[in-house]
Amino acid sequence: MRKYNVAVVGATGLVGGTILKILEERDFPIENIYLFSSKKSAGKALEFRGREYVVEELKEDSFARDIDLAFFAAGGSVSERYAKYAVKEGVMVIDNSSIFRMDKDVPLVVPEVNPEEVEKGKGIISNPNCSTIQSVVALKPIHDRYKIKRIIFSTYQAVSGSGLAGLRDLEEGLVECYPHKIQGNVIPHIDSFLDNGYSKEEMKMIEETRKILKDDSIRITATTVRIPVKYGHSVSINLELEKPFQLEDVYKVLEEFEGIIVKDDLSNNIYPMPLDVAGSDEVYVGRIRRDYSVENGLNLWVVADNIRKGAATNAVQIAELLIYKGK
Amino acid sequence: MRKYNVAVVGATGLVGGTILKILEERDFPIENIYLFSSKKSAGKALEFRGREYVVEELKEDSFARDIDLAFFAAGGSVSERYAKYAVKEGVMVIDNSSIFRMDKDVPLVVPEVNPEEVEKGKGIISNPNCSTIQSVVALKPIHDRYKIKRIIFSTYQAVSGSGLAGLRDLEEGLVECYPHKIQGNVIPHIDSFLDNGYSKEEMKMIEETRKILKDDSIRITATTVRIPVKYGHSVSINLELEKPFQLEDVYKVLEEFEGIIVKDDLSNNIYPMPLDVAGSDEVYVGRIRRDYSVENGLNLWVVADNIRKGAATNAVQIAELLIYKGK
Repeated sequence: MRKYNVAVVGATGLVGGTILKILEERDFPIENIYLFSSKKSAGKALEFRGREYVVEELKEDSFARDIDLAFFAAGGSVSERYAKYAVKEGVMVIDNSSIFRMDKDVPLVVPEVNPEEVEKGKGIISNPNCSTIQSVVALKPIHDRYKIKRIIFSTYQAVSGSGLAGLRDLEEGLVECYPHKIQGNVIPHIDSFLDNGYSKEEMKMIEETRKILKDDSIRITATTVRIPVKYGHSVSINLELEKPFQLEDVYKVLEEFEGIIVKDDLSNNIYPMPLDVAGSDEVYVGRIRRDYSVENGLNLWVVADNIRKGAATNAVQIAELLIYKGK
Repeated sequence: MRKYNVAVVGATGLVGGTILKILEERDFPIENIYLFSSKKSAGKALEFRGREYVVEELKEDSFARDIDLAFFAAGGSVSERYAKYAVKEGVMVIDNSSIFRMDKDVPLVVPEVNPEEVEKGKGIISNPNCSTIQSVVALKPIHDRYKIKRIIFSTYQAVSGSGLAGLRDLEEGLVECYPHKIQGNVIPHIDSFLDNGYSKEEMKMIEETRKILKDDSIRITATTVRIPVKYGHSVSINLELEKPFQLEDVYKVLEEFEGIIVKDDLSNNIYPMPLDVAGSDEVYVGRIRRDYSVENGLNLWVVADNIRKGAATNAVQIAELLIYKGK
C-alpha cells in the first residue's frame, strides 16, 4: 500500500495535536511526517508513533519538498497566508479554518454526508465548522427522507472550540481568550458579530449547512452559545420537515446512518451528553420527539466531541477519502 | 400602614431563604414572621431583620394561628399536603411548586404580566416555573404589540434551580441530585419525562406560557437543559410573530416594559449573561435580531436570576400586589 508524506500545520495546537493522535489511532499510511507551527512554538519536540519530531517554523518555502498532504489547523490568517504555497507545490490541503469554506471552488466535506465532493477539490478541501459537522451528520438522513424546510439551531459549545486558550480561561477563571469570564457563566457570543446582529459562528452554521446539504432552499436560523464545558458541543435542533413522518421511522433512519449513534432511552435517563461523548468519533442523537407546534415538526439533541468529529477526526476522514479515491 | 403576619414554608431551603432576604430588602410590612421546615431541618435558627427565629416543624395545625400570608417553597408534595390547611385557616398561600399551577381556579401570576389575576385567587396563587417567568416577562410586550404565533424555547438552566442539592452536585462533582454528573457536563433532562418524549419542565414552559399570556392559540415547543452554572437561567427564544415589525420598535417595546433591562450592544460585547444578572430582580434581554428563516421571525436571548425573579422575588411581588389590591 502506498504511503504518504504528511504535514500538520499548527501541530502544537489542540486540533493539530489531536490530528496527530488520530493519524496514529487510525494507522494512516504515512511515510514521512512534517510538523509546523508559528515561530513562537517552533523547536518543540512532539512524539508521533514513538519517535520524536522537532516542530519547524512555518515559512513560505516549507512545502518545497515532497509533501502529499497538509492539514492546516492554525487559524484563518495562517491558512490565508500559507495555503497557497502548499497548493503551488502540488500539496493537497485540508484546511480546518473558515477562510475558504464558502469559496465555490472549495469542497466543504463531511465524509458521511457529501463524500463525492472531494473529487472536485482543486488543491484545498475545507473542514466545516465544528457545530455544523455534527449537525449535518444528524440532518443528512432526515433531509434525504423527509426534506428539511426549516432549521432552528441553539448551541451549547465547549471551550475547547477555542483551543488551549479557551480551556485555560475555563480552568483558571481567566478573561483572556473570551471577552468575559466563562467560568460559571454563559456567553452568547462565538466569533465576531456582523451588522445583521448574528455572529460569524451563527452565519457559518447557516451557510455551511446549506452548502453541505446542497440545498439553498433550507431556511435556517442559529443562536451559538459558549458554556463552561471542556469538551463536547451540544446542539438543540428544531426542524420543520416537508413530508410527514412516523417517529419510529426517524429513529431507524438515524440509526442506520453511518457515523450516528442514537442514544434515546428516557426511562433509563439515556440521552447524549458531552461527558459521555468526549473521546469518541461518532455523532450522538437523542431527545428525538415531535414538535407539536408546527406540521411535521421534529426536535433533536445532537452531541459530539468538537475536537475529534468536529475538527480533527473529520479532517483525517477527508484525507482517507482522498486516498480511497486515488486523488 | 397595616402590617402582616407572614409564614415561610421551606425556610431553610434556597428559595425560602431568598424569600426571607427579599422580604428584608423590600421592607415588606411584617408584624410577625413564622418559619417552617421539615422535621429534619426544624430547630435551626435563622436571622430575619436582626432577630433570630427558630424554624418550626410544619404540621397540619401550623396555620391555626393569626397568619395572613404563607409562602410555600418546599416542593410539590409539601404544598399538596399542607396548603389546604393554610387555606382552611384563611391564609393566602403563594405557592412556588408546580402542583396547582394549571388548576383553572388558581391564578398563575407574574406581576408585570398579568397582575389582574391575583383578584381571582381563592386562597392559592401559584408562582410560575422559573424559566417561564423570565420568558413571559420578555414575551408579554411583544405579544401585546405583534401577537406571537409560535415559540421555540431552548434553555440553559443553572443548578440552583434544583436548590442546595443542585449546587452541591456542581461544586463537589457529585451525582446525587442529578442522574448524571453535572460538573463539566450538560444534561438535557429537567424534571421527569412524559410519554410524549417531553420532560415535565418542557411541558411547564409550554402550558404555563399559554396560561399567563392568556392565549391558547400560541404554538410552543421547548427543550430544557441543565448546564454547569450556579445562578442564572438563560433562554434562547425563537419567535414567529403575526404582525410585521421594525427591530427598533421591538427594542423600544422591550425597553419600556416594567421589569426588563435590554442589554444589547454587540460592538461593546454587551449581552445578557448569568454572571452579570445574579443578584438582580430584572429580566435581561439581548441578541435581539431578525430570524430571516420565517416571515416576522425574531430571536431573543433572555437571562434572569432564577432564584430571585424566577422564584423568590416573583413570589414577594405577588404578595405586594395582594396587599396593594387590599386582598
